[in-house]
This record gives sequence, C-alpha cells and structure tokens, in this order.
Amino acid sequence: MMTYLAPYKDMQRLVAQAYHQQDLAALESLDGFDPELANAVMEEAAKFAAGVLAPLNSVGDVQGCRFQDGHGQQGKVITPDGWQEAYQQFAASGWIGLALPEKFGGQGLPKYIAQPVNEMWLSANLAFVMFQALAQGGSEILLNFASDAIQNRYLPNIVSGGWTVAMALTEPNAGSDLGALNTKAILQSDGTYKIKGQKIYITYGEHDLTDNIVHLVLARTPDAPAGSRGISLFIVPKYRVTDNGALGEYNDIRCTGIEHKMGLHGSPTCSISYGDQDNCIGELVGELNQGLMAMFVLMNEARLSCGLQGVALGELGYQRALAYAHERTQGTNKQGEKVAIVEHADVKRMLLDMRSETFALRALGYQIAAQIDATEAADHSSKNSQSKKDRVALLTPIFKAFATERANVMAGQVVQVFGGMGFVEETGVAQIMRDARVTTIYEGTTGIQARDLMFRKVRGDQGKAITELLAEMAQHIRPFESDAMLAPMAKEALQVLAAVEAVLSSRLLSDDSDIESLHAVSVPFLEAMGVLCCMWQLCSTLSYQQAQDSHDVSYEQNIKAMVAFYGAYRLPSAMAALKVVENAGLGLSEYEF
Amino acid sequence: MMTYLAPYKDMQRLVAQAYHQQDLAALESLDGFDPELANAVMEEAAKFAAGVLAPLNSVGDVQGCRFQDGHGQQGKVITPDGWQEAYQQFAASGWIGLALPEKFGGQGLPKYIAQPVNEMWLSANLAFVMFQALAQGGSEILLNFASDAIQNRYLPNIVSGGWTVAMALTEPNAGSDLGALNTKAILQSDGTYKIKGQKIYITYGEHDLTDNIVHLVLARTPDAPAGSRGISLFIVPKYRVTDNGALGEYNDIRCTGIEHKMGLHGSPTCSISYGDQDNCIGELVGELNQGLMAMFVLMNEARLSCGLQGVALGELGYQRALAYAHERTQGTNKQGEKVAIVEHADVKRMLLDMRSETFALRALGYQIAAQIDATEAADHSSKNSQSKKDRVALLTPIFKAFATERANVMAGQVVQVFGGMGFVEETGVAQIMRDARVTTIYEGTTGIQARDLMFRKVRGDQGKAITELLAEMAQHIRPFESDAMLAPMAKEALQVLAAVEAVLSSRLLSDDSDIESLHAVSVPFLEAMGVLCCMWQLCSTLSYQQAQDSHDVSYEQNIKAMVAFYGAYRLPSAMAALKVVENAGLGLSEYEF
Repeated sequence: MMTYLAPYKDMQRLVAQAYHQQDLAALESLDGFDPELANAVMEEAAKFAAGVLAPLNSVGDVQGCRFQDGHGQQGKVITPDGWQEAYQQFAASGWIGLALPEKFGGQGLPKYIAQPVNEMWLSANLAFVMFQALAQGGSEILLNFASDAIQNRYLPNIVSGGWTVAMALTEPNAGSDLGALNTKAILQSDGTYKIKGQKIYITYGEHDLTDNIVHLVLARTPDAPAGSRGISLFIVPKYRVTDNGALGEYNDIRCTGIEHKMGLHGSPTCSISYGDQDNCIGELVGELNQGLMAMFVLMNEARLSCGLQGVALGELGYQRALAYAHERTQGTNKQGEKVAIVEHADVKRMLLDMRSETFALRALGYQIAAQIDATEAADHSSKNSQSKKDRVALLTPIFKAFATERANVMAGQVVQVFGGMGFVEETGVAQIMRDARVTTIYEGTTGIQARDLMFRKVRGDQGKAITELLAEMAQHIRPFESDAMLAPMAKEALQVLAAVEAVLSSRLLSDDSDIESLHAVSVPFLEAMGVLCCMWQLCSTLSYQQAQDSHDVSYEQNIKAMVAFYGAYRLPSAMAALKVVENAGLGLSEYEF
Repeated sequence: MMTYLAPYKDMQRLVAQAYHQQDLAALESLDGFDPELANAVMEEAAKFAAGVLAPLNSVGDVQGCRFQDGHGQQGKVITPDGWQEAYQQFAASGWIGLALPEKFGGQGLPKYIAQPVNEMWLSANLAFVMFQALAQGGSEILLNFASDAIQNRYLPNIVSGGWTVAMALTEPNAGSDLGALNTKAILQSDGTYKIKGQKIYITYGEHDLTDNIVHLVLARTPDAPAGSRGISLFIVPKYRVTDNGALGEYNDIRCTGIEHKMGLHGSPTCSISYGDQDNCIGELVGELNQGLMAMFVLMNEARLSCGLQGVALGELGYQRALAYAHERTQGTNKQGEKVAIVEHADVKRMLLDMRSETFALRALGYQIAAQIDATEAADHSSKNSQSKKDRVALLTPIFKAFATERANVMAGQVVQVFGGMGFVEETGVAQIMRDARVTTIYEGTTGIQARDLMFRKVRGDQGKAITELLAEMAQHIRPFESDAMLAPMAKEALQVLAAVEAVLSSRLLSDDSDIESLHAVSVPFLEAMGVLCCMWQLCSTLSYQQAQDSHDVSYEQNIKAMVAFYGAYRLPSAMAALKVVENAGLGLSEYEF
C-alpha cells in the first residue's frame, strides 16, 4: 500500500514564507486569509489525503479503469473500487471549490493556500485527483470568458463537484500543434452550435463519478481562418442543461475507448466522438476564433499544476526511499554490525538530491502561487503588478518542465534506492516512475516549455523579465559569500548567474541568424534556469528561516546543509547546460538523419 | 509489434575496427576468425533476430510468464506463447554455444564476433534471451573451476541448449551484500553436499523450455568463516545427472513463485526453495570457501553483458524514435506545409543524443570484447597481456554502469519523442523504458560499479591503469585540434582529461582521510569517465574510418558530425561531474536524515 504523510512542517514554513515575501498581508482582499487559516486547512487536508486518498493509490494502479462499449450508445467507463465513495467525500468536504468564488459556492481561498492542499492530493493519489485541476481550470475559463447565463447554469454544479469538467483539445493529428485540429462547429438558428468530431486523450472525459460531465471543446466553424487563429471554444455537456440548471436530454457524446497507459491507470484517458448522430449541441464561450486565448488561461493554470505534480511525486518518492533506506540493511560497519543503507554515502547522495530539489521546487511553486494572488488582488494597471505578472509568466515554463523532468529522474532514483525490490511492482515505487512519465509530456512537452521560455518569455521582452530575475537571485545569494560553509556555493552560483548573462548577450538576445541552433539548446537553457531557481529558493528560504529566530536549530541546520549540498552537487550541471547553450548548433546541423 | 533491424553497417565497421585496433590478426589462435567470418555470422543472426525474436518481444511483455503452484511439488512456470518454439530454433541453430569451446559442441568463436550477435539478441528480445548470458557465464565458471567429471557431465548439454543455467545468489537479506547469505551446504559421506535454503531473483530459475535446469548455488558449509570468505559454489541440477549424462531423479528444487515486475515480463524471476524435503544434492565447484572468486568470473561476464544490454536498448529505442519522427507531422514550415517532427531542432537534439551515445558505447563494448580475446590468446605471463587485462578490468564497471544509466535516459527520450503516444502501451516504447529499468540494478547497482571503479580499479593500483587510459585517450583526441570543425571538441576534451588528472592527484589518489566523501562522489566520477570513454571511442572511430578510405563520404561525415555534437552537448556534463567530485562532501555530512 502506498502511504503518504503530508510534509506538514516544510509546507507550513514555506507557506508562511511565501505569504510574507510576497507581502500578501498588505492586500485588503486577502484579509483573514493568513497563514494561520492556511495551517488549519492544511491540517484537515493532510488527514483526508492520508486517510482516504493514499490507500486508493495502488488500487487504482492495479485495477485501472475499465471501458464497457455498447452501454446505450455512450460507452461506459468504470472507475476503480473506492473511487466513487472517495469522490463523494471529496466533493462533500468542499475541496473542489476551495479556491473558487464564494458566489458560486466555493470557499474563495487564495492560491497560496490552495497550493499545499493540492500538493497533498497529488502526492496521495495523482490518478484520482486529476479532476480537481480540471474543475479549477475549467472554472477560471468560464469566469473569464463565459456569459453570465452560462456561468450561472454551470458553475454552481462544477464548484460543488456535482459535475466534472473535461478538456477536449487533442485530435489524432493535432497534438502539440493545436492549429491543425478539425472538429467542426456549425451555427444553428438559435445561436447554439452543432459539434462534430473526434477527440483523444481526454482526461476524465467519461466516468461513473457524477451524473453530468461538462466538456470544453476546441473546434472550428466552417468559415474560420486556417491554423490556430480559427479555433473557438465551446461548452458541450454530456447531458444538456436547462435554463434552471436541471439535466436535459443526452447530448450525443460517445466515449469510444480509453487508453491502456504506462501509468496513471486510475485516471481514464478517453477517446470521445462528438455528434455521431448529428445531435451534439454546444455553446460558444468567449469570442469566435479566440478559443486558443481562452485555452491559454487554462494552460497556464494546468502547467503550474503539472509542476506541482513534479513536486508531489518527488515528495512521495522521497518518503518511500527514506523509509526503505532506514529499514533495509546491507553490509556491516567496522564493528561487524549490520548497517541500514541510509548510512551508505551513495544512498545518502541520492536521498539528499531528492530532498533538496523537491524542497526547492516546492518553495518555487509556493512563491509563484502567492505571486499570482498578489497580482490578482493588486491594482491591475500598476507597473508593479505587470512586473509580477511577467515574473509568473517567465517562471511558469521553468517550473512546469524542470519540476516534471526532475520528478522523472527522482522516481528513477527511488527505484534505485530500493534495488531489485524497486523493480518488483508490489513495492509500489515502480508506480511512481510510471505515473511520473507523462508529466513531461502533457500540458505542453518539455520542448514546448523550453521554446516558450526562450522565444516568448526571454527574447519576447528583450530579456527584461529575466534580467530582473537574475538580479533578484544575486541579491539572495550574495549574503552567503561571507558564510564559511556556504562561500563556495555562493561563489559558484554567482558565476553561473554571470554565465547566464553572458550567454544572453552573446547568443540568446543577439543572434537572429541561427534560430534553429537556439531551438536545439532551448531545453539545456531551461535546465540551467531550473537549477538556478532551486538554488535561489534554497538561499532565500535559509535567509528567511534564519531571520525568524524559530529556535528550531536542527531544522535550520538541515536547510543550510541542503544549500551547501545543492550548490556542490547540482550547480555544476547548470554551468554545463550553459556551456551547451554556448556550443549551440555544433554537429547537429551537419548530421543527416 | 516491436520491429528491429540490426544496424548492420555500424556493426560491421566497428567489428572490423576492434579487430584491427586490437591487432587480433597477429594471433595464431584466431586464425580464420576474421571480420569476413564475423560478417557472415552477423548476417544470419540479423535474420534470426528480426524474423523470430523481435516479433515475440511484445508478446512476452503483454502475456508475461505464469506461475502454477502445486504442480507435483515443483511449482511450474509457463513461458509466453512462442517462447518454446523460438528456444528450440535458437538452440538448434547453434547460437547458444557460439562462443563456447568446440570440445563441448560449441563453435568456439572469439568474443569480438559474439558481441554484435549478442547485441542483436538483446535488442530483439531482451526478456527472452536472458538464458544466453547465463549459459555463457555458467559455462565459463565450469571451464575455469569445475572438475573434468563435472565438465563432461554438464557442459555438452549446456552448450547445445539442452539444459539451461540458473544462478542462485541473492537471498532476501543478502542482495548487494552476498556475504550475508545463509543457504546451507552439508557434506555427505559420498563427497556431495546437501543444500538447504531459499533464494530469490533467480532468472530462468524455473521454466518450460528444457527438461533440466542447472543451478549454480552459493551456499555456506557449517564451519565456514563468516561473511564473504565463507561462501562456496555448488552445482545443483533440478534433475540429478548420472555419470553418463542421463537424467536421474528429481532433486528437491521447488519454485515457490515468480516476481511481478515492472518490465522484462517474459523472463521469469523465480524464488526457489532448495531442499524442502532434505533431499537436494549438490557438488562443490572449485575450492571450498572460494565461491565468490568463481562468481567474479561470472560477474565480469555478466557486467559486460549488462553494458551491452544498454547499447542494445539504446539502439532499439533509437530505431523506434527515428522512424516515428519521420512519420509524425506536427506544425508547418514557412511554406505552410506540414513538417515531420524530425525537422524540429529539439527532436533532432534528442535523436542525435541517442544515436551518438549508442554508437560510442557500442564501439567501447566491441573494443572490450576484442581486448578480452587478445588477452586470452596471448601469452598470459607477458606484461602487455597484464596491462590489457587491467584495461578490461578498469573499463568493465564504466561500461556496465554508464551504458545502462544512459539506456534509461535514452528510453525516456524515446517516450518523449513519441509524446502522448509514448505513454500509451500499444506503441511499445514504454516497454523499452520498463525493461531498461532493472539494468542499472542487477549484476551490481550503479553505486557498486562506481565503488569498484574508484576503490578497486583506480585507487587499487595507485592510478596506473587509469593514467594509461587517459594517455591513450589524449592520443586519439589530439589530432583533431587542427581540424576546423572539431577543434572546439578537441580543446574541451583535453581540458576534461586534465581535470580528471587534477582530481586524481588532488583527491582520489591522495585523500585517505575522508573516504566517506569519496564514496559520495563515486557515481559522478564514473559518469565523467563514461562520457570520456564515449568521446574517445568516437574520435578513434573517426580516425579509423578516415584511414580506411572507404569512399562512403556521407557515412564518414555523419560520424564526424557525431563527434562534434557529442563534444558540444555531452562533454560539458563530464566537466560538471568532475566539479562535483572536487566538491565532494559539501553539505552531505552535515545533513541529518
């Protein structure tokens, strides 16, 4: 059985830190939503995660979802044992609407509080809880783009968990390139649209948890421009919804199958056929041909949630590896006594690698969440608010791609710590590795995040946001130049910062002639930035904790040790990645595949 | 279905190169075993691999082996559909005894010819062909340590494939630490031993392919010294073997179950109980209490085979990724035409990363095989032969650990190239990743290889063998300092070599005070050596191919492009790893788990 206990102490401290560092206390709209409230919420969530969700994690993996064709015309998906009861409890406890508006029945909590709670769900049972990010992201789309009528008809049921949300984007020939999609939307005389097309990879596109499913479908009207500028967004429920919010007739949405995946067996990944009987009705959300813009809202949300999945899986794996390393003995010490493998230096290295990177990425994720709260609450026209938004936009692809790439590496390390036992499915750690594998693919592959970072976020504003970020990093690192233990870290970190600046001016911002070569090193560039972000967050955490005078000396010493370790073991890889960026293009353009 | 075509051109050239560079033509005992013969053998093997083994690869993954308890007392293992027929054909074609002595029915081919053939088996169907390395390694143990009587009774049937070999080492509490094992061996009046104990993780420990299985079992006599100096090796057949080689009575060996593994589903991993009825008879192989020494022969063999598995899985994955990248379109070019993803720079980077590293590791493996041939054929007492042996001993842990670690990274890249399709099991590439996962664990984890490298192979001879290796690497790299395209690579490679020398003298060979910290950076040190070995092999291949004047200009240009690419994209990681070695210990010793 997959056990999980929320790392409550780390979470509490990092939540308080994000709150203070982003100065959320100064925002009137967040009155009352302070770290004390956060702790109370986290305490409840931790119980639910450990008690209800975690025990079902391997049940979902072993059983998976089952598809039954020919259930009427709809195709039926049966979720694993216990899923339905857990969903009822989850919804009844109000967890779905935690960060959604009170107006529609939510609790209206800020993101900085929802973040650790979501992390707990993702650690405890990633496959189960995929519906949560969909409800959150789908609601934000509707809040931003849908008419009041649509909001009133759908949001109360989404926020309460009465209905789930499904996002229908991908088609067999339109994956990363959404502009190639072909699903049709034909305007009817009453202003609605008839939807017709096949979509794949729809998470929770069909299931047995709720009596309706709200599909948000990207489609194309007949006269729409080609490519991504001709895509519109439609709301298409499985059962139509009357004006007073009651369920109407079946809306001709048929699940044609579910994928047999490497991991996330408990989360149904559906193929859906819309309008087989020419009777699938949708309503436009937002402006015609502006569907991708609405989708970007969801994507940013989803990418941050993905990054948090990386943190959550890193934590889950670390907990398992640490417990096993304490319990498993191999070899003897000089006194001839058996020693636990946690005493072996190479195992220690792997454990501290996982621990420090997960901790740093958690800190980064919490800062981003608090920063979003700050921008949303602040005066939107202010210069300060725009700069905070640009910071979030810059960090999003780094957090998404780096946290998920590292979660994959860490999941591999967990298996390695378990040795032969890790390769045996019963131990449960192979599942972490299999589940993690998709996180670098969905919601935009690592390659796509890296392109977004290099071309939109760095070159797009001529390096303004990244230069500000580098300056802030330096500010947090410099104080440690005079610390005996941390001076080598600080020196090397500042060298890496200088190397980023050098490569920005020598290649990334100046070179317009060889864009191909820049594309080929966008992932290494993102990796370097990922390591730097972790180093920055570790340093900033250490300063913050030291300033708190918490008297928890051993906790602070461990954070300091992590800073030293991360500098010694991971900073060199950032320097190497920047060297690769400098070498951009060598060999690659000459090779013929 | 998992297709595989042997990379015949690369193999032919690297085989010829290894033959010439190790000067095997000068060895009388290898008369007639020239690259021309190698090509003929490879051609046949390639047909068998593609026609018989590859089509069964996903069958084995999907079906797996099945365990039936209560079949008599023995416990029965049923292999996947097609396994039995394929085994019959494999054995009948003489592939098992390919590199085993003619005296016992083998074909006596040198290792440098067996190496590409084995690579083909491993690519085509790793789970199936696990018995091959066991037959080879088991035979070498018997040839080196067993009495003539035992050799004559067992080897003909092993070499022909009539019986398979199983190695029974691990026990629940004795994994990496074999010294902790508890299986008992009690001397009988007739000189045989009664064996009693439980072993786990025994590959092909039970199956339905042959009518006998020869177990080589590590056990302890009652008065043996504690730890690893009290372990002896016994030959323990499932059915006893009469003096004339016929099958006798059942030898009280019971399979109690098979593991449910993440990958390699077609290869049964058995738990075996020896002597439940106190009637399991074994014979001593070699000297009493010298069992681990015999096992080292097997282990070296098995480690090289493991490294080759890394090459084989890298190749299989690369073939799948390349084919998919040519076929899958996403996005459009400036003319508005759809482009295959092989045109995307980031995909190219991943493909060339796989291609160049697999190629380089193959070259390294073939050189090691030829070097073993050279030492076995040469005058054993000569100084030159000892230095070649030391070279093989030095390269073995690097090849084993680095090739398998990289195979895991590459298998992840294959899934990444496939995107969402990679996460879906039907594509077959998830299997490569799942199968690869155990290769860094079995036959000594990466941590154990790294310890072997740093403490036995480098510190053990005060750096003699590694210094010779570094000098040879420099020799192969230096000529390219004057090549316009390769000068940056050569310059950086020489810098990395200098950094290895620096860290050898500043820490690895001098520092006896802080052994713990050295343990903690043994894996990074091995990684740096792995990258250097690849760089060296790529340079040496390029020189060799250029000297051949083969007129295959495009092939040579591609090799040159790989050299440039590998230098630009992978050398920096070696430098980073050495920096980590230099930083050994920072943070790790201060952290309290």
